[in-house]
Amino acid sequence: MMRHVIDVADLTFAELSALIAAGERIAAEPGAWADRARGKVLASLFFEPSTRTRLSFEIAMARLGGTVISMADGAASSASKGETLADTARVISGYADIVAMRHPKDGAALVAAEASRVPLVNAGDGGHFHPTQTLADLLTIHREFGRCSGLTVAVVGDLLYGRTVHSLLAALSRFSGNEILAVSPAELRLPEQTVAALSQAGVRVREVKSLEEAVASADVVYMTRVQRERFGDPVQYERLRDAYVLDASVMAHAREHTIVMHPLPRVNEIAVDVDSDPRARYFEQAENGMFMRMALIDFLLREGGLRLALHGPRRKRAEGGTSFAVGTESGTPASGDTGAPASGASVRPERLRPPARVNHECPNPRCVTRWDRGAVAFAYESAEGPRCGFCDTRL
Amino acid sequence: MMRHVIDVADLTFAELSALIAAGERIAAEPGAWADRARGKVLASLFFEPSTRTRLSFEIAMARLGGTVISMADGAASSASKGETLADTARVISGYADIVAMRHPKDGAALVAAEASRVPLVNAGDGGHFHPTQTLADLLTIHREFGRCSGLTVAVVGDLLYGRTVHSLLAALSRFSGNEILAVSPAELRLPEQTVAALSQAGVRVREVKSLEEAVASADVVYMTRVQRERFGDPVQYERLRDAYVLDASVMAHAREHTIVMHPLPRVNEIAVDVDSDPRARYFEQAENGMFMRMALIDFLLREGGLRLALHGPRRKRAEGGTSFAVGTESGTPASGDTGAPASGASVRPERLRPPARVNHECPNPRCVTRWDRGAVAFAYESAEGPRCGFCDTRL
Amino acid sequence: MMRHVIDVADLTFAELSALIAAGERIAAEPGAWADRARGKVLASLFFEPSTRTRLSFEIAMARLGGTVISMADGAASSASKGETLADTARVISGYADIVAMRHPKDGAALVAAEASRVPLVNAGDGGHFHPTQTLADLLTIHREFGRCSGLTVAVVGDLLYGRTVHSLLAALSRFSGNEILAVSPAELRLPEQTVAALSQAGVRVREVKSLEEAVASADVVYMTRVQRERFGDPVQYERLRDAYVLDASVMAHAREHTIVMHPLPRVNEIAVDVDSDPRARYFEQAENGMFMRMALIDFLLREGGLRLALHGPRRKRAEGGTSFAVGTESGTPASGDTGAPASGASVRPERLRPPARVNHECPNPRCVTRWDRGAVAFAYESAEGPRCGFCDTRL
Repeated sequence: MMRHVIDVADLTFAELSALIAAGERIAAEPGAWADRARGKVLASLFFEPSTRTRLSFEIAMARLGGTVISMADGAASSASKGETLADTARVISGYADIVAMRHPKDGAALVAAEASRVPLVNAGDGGHFHPTQTLADLLTIHREFGRCSGLTVAVVGDLLYGRTVHSLLAALSRFSGNEILAVSPAELRLPEQTVAALSQAGVRVREVKSLEEAVASADVVYMTRVQRERFGDPVQYERLRDAYVLDASVMAHAREHTIVMHPLPRVNEIAVDVDSDPRARYFEQAENGMFMRMALIDFLLREGGLRLALHGPRRKRAEGGTSFAVGTESGTPASGDTGAPASGASVRPERLRPPARVNHECPNPRCVTRWDRGAVAFAYESAEGPRCGFCDTRL
Repeated sequence: MMRHVIDVADLTFAELSALIAAGERIAAEPGAWADRARGKVLASLFFEPSTRTRLSFEIAMARLGGTVISMADGAASSASKGETLADTARVISGYADIVAMRHPKDGAALVAAEASRVPLVNAGDGGHFHPTQTLADLLTIHREFGRCSGLTVAVVGDLLYGRTVHSLLAALSRFSGNEILAVSPAELRLPEQTVAALSQAGVRVREVKSLEEAVASADVVYMTRVQRERFGDPVQYERLRDAYVLDASVMAHAREHTIVMHPLPRVNEIAVDVDSDPRARYFEQAENGMFMRMALIDFLLREGGLRLALHGPRRKRAEGGTSFAVGTESGTPASGDTGAPASGASVRPERLRPPARVNHECPNPRCVTRWDRGAVAFAYESAEGPRCGFCDTRL
Repeated sequence: MMRHVIDVADLTFAELSALIAAGERIAAEPGAWADRARGKVLASLFFEPSTRTRLSFEIAMARLGGTVISMADGAASSASKGETLADTARVISGYADIVAMRHPKDGAALVAAEASRVPLVNAGDGGHFHPTQTLADLLTIHREFGRCSGLTVAVVGDLLYGRTVHSLLAALSRFSGNEILAVSPAELRLPEQTVAALSQAGVRVREVKSLEEAVASADVVYMTRVQRERFGDPVQYERLRDAYVLDASVMAHAREHTIVMHPLPRVNEIAVDVDSDPRARYFEQAENGMFMRMALIDFLLREGGLRLALHGPRRKRAEGGTSFAVGTESGTPASGDTGAPASGASVRPERLRPPARVNHECPNPRCVTRWDRGAVAFAYESAEGPRCGFCDTRL
């Protein structure tokens, strides 16, 4: 059965664990995978430029022995001639064996996946999902500690808008016994409903004002960039950007086993003097992204390579937005890991009734439905009320 | 002997038939061709973006086991430093085994082919030729009916400017017994000389005002997009664009064996509700384009793989513009097909005297000779008088 | 030990000779190298477009059996998010086995090389260095004469700004017995210190006003383009551009064995009627560039494939700017060649004291240190005083 990966939540806990285990094997012996995708073609479709992510996907395919065809900047594509995203996806998926797609609009990956004739991996759809970044993060943690559970993780920076952090927290909530230390300026705090969902999933969240204090007790310090484009006022941006800077003096508070992560690119939230610290892992983290993309491509190209617990994309995606562990799913944990109390389930807001295609107008100005006339809006019911079926925004 | 394909007319009827037969075999068993171009390199040179066509060529090469190097947007190329297209073609053809080239100027493919040291395929030169689109169309028809002759084909939309339609009609005129139903707004009718040339080639052309009527009696319904860039007046564009829309209600008039084609991208001339109609073939048509590009690349890389009836590019191209069957060429038809009365000949306007390099100024503002100082204009005599040797415009 | 090639001077005379010999073998039998880089990946990072150079590198890798991932226009990269070049280089070098990098800023290649985890080849850093062009030039000469020594080479055009000419002259100064004929408008004469350095290296330089005279006595006529972007005044540009034009009438003065070279693209400094002259070598020269890039990639991917006489990039690059032969290095000459009196040494301005990282501001407005906050300026002492450690400009 054909699978797409729009979000980490599209993977069962067993699949997620198996992917991490595969990532470990690939990292240990990359050459052993050199022929896994021989004769297969990846279409790398980037409707907005993201060089780093694109190269990582393309080289992942190359290291599996496959071939890549690449669209580095889709602004130049048929979209300018009035073609729908579904038509584009349908045609190009007719040429390739697997598609990696990046798009500036929230929900675009699902629109394309529904039309695609081959597996599609979301390489980032607006500010919505970017699952392979989270897979890179999980492998980095797992390579260090042999597990993704029972850890204290400090997340630092923009906890309000940061897609990367939200996705990582959702993933960590599927593993048991993790504790989160939230370090951010007041304006960029973790949303209350996220804290609530994490708590419900058994993850303790503590707000910590001092970076030194967080660093002193964390196993993982996860730094993030404050994005300029979030702020109208450049003065406010400058102030918030420099609120928390990790440098050698702060690292003096960290324990020996603590690691520093960052999804990159960084601006100045990690000083260059930390680069030579043996606890820095952010460059390895980027390399781990390549290994996990190899694992994911390999998984999607092989039907039956892993137990397929979920069903088509429409069904799954209709389950909701960012998801925290409260479900009842079961799975085989990776070595050393234990699932959350709810067995490592992906927990999107519950679907209270079947999705209905309704003629709603999505209030999210960056939603794909407001940009692509082929994306027929639909809504679904979550615990917090109806949401857009593509971008998961509350209606 | 080295060959280039600037237009479908550069292929003899025997070659065209053999390519279609090869396309059928590739479509049936693509994996069997996975090593045909091993060790060969395609230079994919796009002087204007055309993602779909580019990816189709590149993946065609990949599926033959060859390698691709790609220039996705040649606006950034040496042309900006004042280099002639001939110099660019000569250098890059020194790196590659075969070249696919797209260029915004009419006649540019011939300029490059004359300088190229390896076979060159025209992937579209302005509004002039785009032969692989027509090859895709022919394979789609042949896969459906087992032949490209004895069919009733309705062409709908912009029959005045539409390069795709003109090229398809010229190709169909080389097969016997085809009838054309022309459906268009009055402003976008098939040019009279085209109708005359088709008639002379034994193809009956009937103008039909009602789309329903055309659909009811056609074997093939070939829809086309009305291009916004043809019209200064947006109101006129909107009106003409919506003149003929194929939807489920129109399809109710079609017979069971009738197929719907479209070169894509579409805007709204085919409603989305036709996509699920079992008679829709436009997405398969795109895939067939990949198969025919595989067949063509394979043909050009193998000297002697097919009988080479024609001689150098200059000689052939000097024969003229869009060509309709009236010649005397002979060939081996593909199974099920019969050539036109004139034996499936390519019939460009007759060359009354040898081409002469004269210092004419081509009246076509999009002619390559008005843009590239290295393209020395020449003229040739056709039945309708002298024409530009590059863009075939009447002088 | 990992090596980078920022400049030809980074290669010992023995290595340079061995690379030329490898280029000869590749040119003779390219197919024999089809598996040398199997399983390896080249990251082709172009922070400014240069289609010709990029395609040449990429196809060189393809012809060695390797895979390429490509960034055709880095303007779209993470740099726009405030990332330093060092971070970008570090991440992407974590994906690839070798990097080819083009960048608009002087000294950018060294910044990236210092951070790179794999060998890096400079594919042009601003107006600074472009070593593979010079390697192409040397192979072209060597294929013709069986040596790069004992030749009379006329260099024509912009001898003041022309990076290509300066790099070629520096390389020729490492071979014995060469004589240079300098042909240029007064405004674009070879700088005096270059003439002095060449003389000191045993290379005789003669200024010749008449192109005919130079052509009559040269073994190699090396034409260059006068670049429009060097001149504020278009009238001056037009005049200087047309000061020396090589056409068939000038070629009538040349001897039979004389060859014509040009780094391309040309504008009109070589008339098209020279293209068919059997002494024209500029298109072969471009092809030789591909062969030398193959040789260089192969060399860098194979540790110990050649004797590694030099040490880390920092050490070497700190030695200085454009270099002329006066050193004491020894090496095994390629067949037919003899090193300069000083044994073919690379002679950058001597380093009088160890490089010091000082907080200087480089006066060169195109220096990478003025653009990238991660490039910490450092200076070194040359015979002419302190220079910028990245762009070699005198402070």
